[in-house]
Amino acid sequence: MPAAIRVTVWNEFCHEKQNDAVKKLYPDGMHAVIAAFLNKAGLEATTATLDEPEHGLTEEVLDKTDVLIWWGHAAHGDVQDEIVSRVQQRVLEGMGLIVLHSGHFSKIFKRMLGTNCSLKWREIAEKERLWNLAPSHPITEGIGEYIELPNTEMYGERFDIPTPEELIFVSWFEGGEVFRSGCTWQRGNGRLFYFRPGHETYPIFYNDDVMTVIANACRWAAPRRRRKTAGAIKCPDPLEEVEPKDVDFGKAGIQQ
Amino acid sequence: MPAAIRVTVWNEFCHEKQNDAVKKLYPDGMHAVIAAFLNKAGLEATTATLDEPEHGLTEEVLDKTDVLIWWGHAAHGDVQDEIVSRVQQRVLEGMGLIVLHSGHFSKIFKRMLGTNCSLKWREIAEKERLWNLAPSHPITEGIGEYIELPNTEMYGERFDIPTPEELIFVSWFEGGEVFRSGCTWQRGNGRLFYFRPGHETYPIFYNDDVMTVIANACRWAAPRRRRKTAGAIKCPDPLEEVEPKDVDFGKAGIQQ
Amino acid sequence: MPAAIRVTVWNEFCHEKQNDAVKKLYPDGMHAVIAAFLNKAGLEATTATLDEPEHGLTEEVLDKTDVLIWWGHAAHGDVQDEIVSRVQQRVLEGMGLIVLHSGHFSKIFKRMLGTNCSLKWREIAEKERLWNLAPSHPITEGIGEYIELPNTEMYGERFDIPTPEELIFVSWFEGGEVFRSGCTWQRGNGRLFYFRPGHETYPIFYNDDVMTVIANACRWAAPRRRRKTAGAIKCPDPLEEVEPKDVDFGKAGIQQ
Amino acid sequence: MPAAIRVTVWNEFCHEKQNDAVKKLYPDGMHAVIAAFLNKAGLEATTATLDEPEHGLTEEVLDKTDVLIWWGHAAHGDVQDEIVSRVQQRVLEGMGLIVLHSGHFSKIFKRMLGTNCSLKWREIAEKERLWNLAPSHPITEGIGEYIELPNTEMYGERFDIPTPEELIFVSWFEGGEVFRSGCTWQRGNGRLFYFRPGHETYPIFYNDDVMTVIANACRWAAPRRRRKTAGAIKCPDPLEEVEPKDVDFGKAGIQQ
Repeated sequence: MPAAIRVTVWNEFCHEKQNDAVKKLYPDGMHAVIAAFLNKAGLEATTATLDEPEHGLTEEVLDKTDVLIWWGHAAHGDVQDEIVSRVQQRVLEGMGLIVLHSGHFSKIFKRMLGTNCSLKWREIAEKERLWNLAPSHPITEGIGEYIELPNTEMYGERFDIPTPEELIFVSWFEGGEVFRSGCTWQRGNGRLFYFRPGHETYPIFYNDDVMTVIANACRWAAPRRRRKTAGAIKCPDPLEEVEPKDVDFGKAGIQQ
Repeated sequence: MPAAIRVTVWNEFCHEKQNDAVKKLYPDGMHAVIAAFLNKAGLEATTATLDEPEHGLTEEVLDKTDVLIWWGHAAHGDVQDEIVSRVQQRVLEGMGLIVLHSGHFSKIFKRMLGTNCSLKWREIAEKERLWNLAPSHPITEGIGEYIELPNTEMYGERFDIPTPEELIFVSWFEGGEVFRSGCTWQRGNGRLFYFRPGHETYPIFYNDDVMTVIANACRWAAPRRRRKTAGAIKCPDPLEEVEPKDVDFGKAGIQQ
Repeated sequence: MPAAIRVTVWNEFCHEKQNDAVKKLYPDGMHAVIAAFLNKAGLEATTATLDEPEHGLTEEVLDKTDVLIWWGHAAHGDVQDEIVSRVQQRVLEGMGLIVLHSGHFSKIFKRMLGTNCSLKWREIAEKERLWNLAPSHPITEGIGEYIELPNTEMYGERFDIPTPEELIFVSWFEGGEVFRSGCTWQRGNGRLFYFRPGHETYPIFYNDDVMTVIANACRWAAPRRRRKTAGAIKCPDPLEEVEPKDVDFGKAGIQQ
Repeated sequence: MPAAIRVTVWNEFCHEKQNDAVKKLYPDGMHAVIAAFLNKAGLEATTATLDEPEHGLTEEVLDKTDVLIWWGHAAHGDVQDEIVSRVQQRVLEGMGLIVLHSGHFSKIFKRMLGTNCSLKWREIAEKERLWNLAPSHPITEGIGEYIELPNTEMYGERFDIPTPEELIFVSWFEGGEVFRSGCTWQRGNGRLFYFRPGHETYPIFYNDDVMTVIANACRWAAPRRRRKTAGAIKCPDPLEEVEPKDVDFGKAGIQQ
């Protein structure tokens, strides 16, 4: 039996402390609800939050993390750049990264993708339907033609991201917009999945379909083999014999 | 007649001052040789270097830059982060970016791509042949099956970059390696081209094929239309009528 | 001044003869309306239809065609395979191909893409909104955030196509579905654009935005340089010196 | 324990009967050597050849095939179009397809990709080095930086294929060329892998690295879930309420 996939669920954990409606929905934080589901699903999930030392993302924690889930919204700016760089290196070495909802504006997501990750939004509790464009992808295992969420915050295009390597979900919104709601990219040896649902004022992380997708994504993003990628490698000797050359271009400076 | 494309050729301009062989090859700097070729080719090229105030990349300069060419090697760390962020925003708004040779390790290239951009290298003046994999692409206009360079520094795979959207050139090296030497990506509204040739100790920027590719790439990367992409856009009203909803999930916290 | 781009607008031209409502909308056929718009837009457009000899797509016609537009629906099966192969070769050599609406099931589209190109559909004259996901692409020049069509046939996902290289439009439908409505691919030296709008019972080809997109797409898909790609090329001599070898694996049959 | 992956190794099986050197190398055919390796590697491999009824690819055989491996060269034209269409449908439904070496010109490969799949070639028993560009991909499990083959037929660019979704290997050849030697694509629900090595006059299929890649590719390409994709699906009712419309565009023919 293969070892369980180790997931660290990171949450800035602000709204749940400050807003009564959110507190009622997620009294122990969204991370707790997500981790509980993943543990039931056979993964080995723990949590980390902004206020912990090093935001709970020490080298030791990351050593034991196969997949990192990221939820942030109000406090993106409070995440230390050093920790962002550390997480980025881990992803490039092979750790999976799953970014949820408002995490689109997190430092780590923008760092990995290089774009502004901007979008349109509106909050009127409208209906969303996430159409499954990749019905044979591991991330959509157990999901039908679409996932329907009766009340959500809307995100609309143009979403400023690099073209996704795989477009898994596209959302339809009652108010008239569309959005690329499930997207994958590979960066270095790591795999990224952005998944749109998850606004703090709706019980999105109690929805079975949403949570099934997140659990599937953890299995998909778990590292196959880890490798460091930073640093140039000097090759002292060629593999093939190369004739000795007497080059002194400096004296000429022009092409012969 | 359309306005000429305005190119700013940026060079850290260190090797040419410090190393006699390089100084003989490029007495006024590689940027001067590149800009001179581009001006002859009908583009409107100027230069900027590390030692100028704001590295020569003020807002005013960037306002008048359609395409930025980047050469750096010894002084990547000396480029200020603020200027890197400024250039990144301009690229996302539509400015073209062409990164040459050792610029693969520049802050701006890593910032745009999100990966370490590491590679293998060796310097024994070996032969390189850049195979043209995109014979109908604008960047290869006027280029035959391959470009041959008799003496180059070798760059070898694995090059740690996101999968290029278009793979224009793949290099063969005498010593036994291969390399993805011409790669394009789109980020925001901007287009990026990485082009491998250009080591400072060889007269690469006097080679007509190399320079033809760079001029072509400027034409290809010039902005079609500029748009700002930073910042979320709040949509006050839906496009379609949405029924009023009376949602109070906070009292339940569970899915009905 | 560059020569005008020569467009051939192909239409099976069946519905317009057989159905009174369509006949009233397009008395001379949809191809005539499309060609008239393109000619006004500065392109050089002619037409071809199923009933003409060789479906109007003789070698002579294709010699003078930079971009072929394809509309078919009821008579896909009547298009001769030989003509499909001829068109396919021209696309691989560099001719642009724009496939409209129900052309998704045409032989030429399936031939170019290799998939079934199936989808969902419904006809209740519902509203469609095509969101512009590529606001700096040449195909969306002059187009705002979205194109709205008050009455259309719906096409829904999952659309069985290879992942588009560029996703230009995604449609929102009043009835609840989404669709990848503007997609590009490169095949050989040719560029393809699939564009969803165009049902025969609605005045879609009188819509300025729709026609602007089609005209833009013709400019984008026009060949840069044509090249034949069929046939393997035997290279008699290596570019590099290769040591003579005395290989007789036949006697062994196993790896040494 | 999951059921073993069922692989059918298809070979035209011509050279081995007609050419003495090839016969010595592969007395029972290349398919037999490949299948034997795969069976040792824990897969469940059987074989099929051109001369069998329906080329050994009956509906019954395909029902029990998770991954089809294809080797052809001299007899591409003898493969019946009906069987090609049958295999294509199975791939679109989810069956994996691995095409080896000269199979680049097979009907099924060209059918899946839509391009001519042409390339350059030369046979002087030169050295090939396949560089591993995807060191964390399942297909390169157990493979180091490169695979070296001392004697091979050369294949050179430009290889006329759609841009691979993943570029796994790029070959270096002693005589001076490069080639995209390991490429993946998804079509419908099926995954394709093209792998260059495998010329009949060299003992390529006795090479452990080559065979490891083929076995890995079978595991990677095995279907996750099968789905039929042919045929449009009519949606009788919208998911959302749509207002009744009284549309009679036919009387006008122009946009209001």
